[in-house]
Amino acid sequence: MNQQYPSKLLERAINEFTKLPGVGRKTALRFVLHLLRQDIDSVESFGNSLIQLKNDIKYCQICHNISDTDVCQICSNPNRDSSIVCVVENIRDVMIIESTQQFRGLYHVLGGVISPMDGIGPNNIKINSLIERVNNNEIKEVILALSTTMEGDTTNFFIYRKLESANIKISTLSRGVSIGDELEYTDEITLGRSIVNRTQFNGQI
Amino acid sequence: MNQQYPSKLLERAINEFTKLPGVGRKTALRFVLHLLRQDIDSVESFGNSLIQLKNDIKYCQICHNISDTDVCQICSNPNRDSSIVCVVENIRDVMIIESTQQFRGLYHVLGGVISPMDGIGPNNIKINSLIERVNNNEIKEVILALSTTMEGDTTNFFIYRKLESANIKISTLSRGVSIGDELEYTDEITLGRSIVNRTQFNGQI
Repeated sequence: MNQQYPSKLLERAINEFTKLPGVGRKTALRFVLHLLRQDIDSVESFGNSLIQLKNDIKYCQICHNISDTDVCQICSNPNRDSSIVCVVENIRDVMIIESTQQFRGLYHVLGGVISPMDGIGPNNIKINSLIERVNNNEIKEVILALSTTMEGDTTNFFIYRKLESANIKISTLSRGVSIGDELEYTDEITLGRSIVNRTQFNGQI
Repeated sequence: MNQQYPSKLLERAINEFTKLPGVGRKTALRFVLHLLRQDIDSVESFGNSLIQLKNDIKYCQICHNISDTDVCQICSNPNRDSSIVCVVENIRDVMIIESTQQFRGLYHVLGGVISPMDGIGPNNIKINSLIERVNNNEIKEVILALSTTMEGDTTNFFIYRKLESANIKISTLSRGVSIGDELEYTDEITLGRSIVNRTQFNGQI
């Protein structure tokens, strides 16, 4: 439908919203009409929060996570175990792992994975700074927590080869049946891996 | 999940997005991470487009539709029939009816319907300006195109009583079976109405 908008300003705001992932013209119109019903202060606060975010956001000098300061809250926290570094693809993965409350080490955000198809090579992501970090600090273990895609596996292997000589433990997330999953719907490779890597049962999940 | 965000700026931008209808924290995070990947010019353009929209938008002095000018494109178009006024609830309804390309008259945007439950009375919406408009202009027909809800029907009736003495034609949208609908799934009131108001069949839909 070639929609005619009654106002250029409205049209421009709608066009901006449709650039967001998963937002079509109808949703964008709904957003814009909602904003028009708010007072001017709310809308200015909305618009400025985005501009300020983009202008003032910093990336941690150590782990490259998003941060308000030069070194992020996690890297600067003395209660965290700085000898374990968990390598992740992006800042969302940091948030997801943090929400499990099961990890007390530090992170290293690569900002992507090696993907020749998309023109992303080892030098386009933060692999060199990871190698430097491992070489210059007392790090005992690197956990590779990347996606189980071909690109993730390639990146895992690349990092593994670079760190092989560093005499540290390199681990990956355990693969296995998801909690709550039925065996029937688990793929064979995962199921096979979870039999090979079976864990001792002590009466608790 | 009580999510910890790595940055206050990020958290603020996410909070602003969650105020939009149908946007939760996960979607808001996705939007914000998307914006962080854009260059600063794009983000400034986005933010400023919202602020400018709210600051500079005008409402047509005649029909109260959104407009960039004091009188909107529809009201100022000499090719439209100014003797027919279609009364709608909001500016979205104008766009929907315009997209049918079946109406060449003008509009009147009430900005809501009478809803005592929400504290909206006849004076909170643009009914008085409709009455004035009908009394001071050569208007032959008013089409009431409000929602078929209790509030819409109440508003229809209120306007009808106010315009009764004006000696003009007052009509509403025809009710009936939707094109593409199966009779089986049509509610009885609509089906009953569409039998009473059956139209002559001339071999075409």
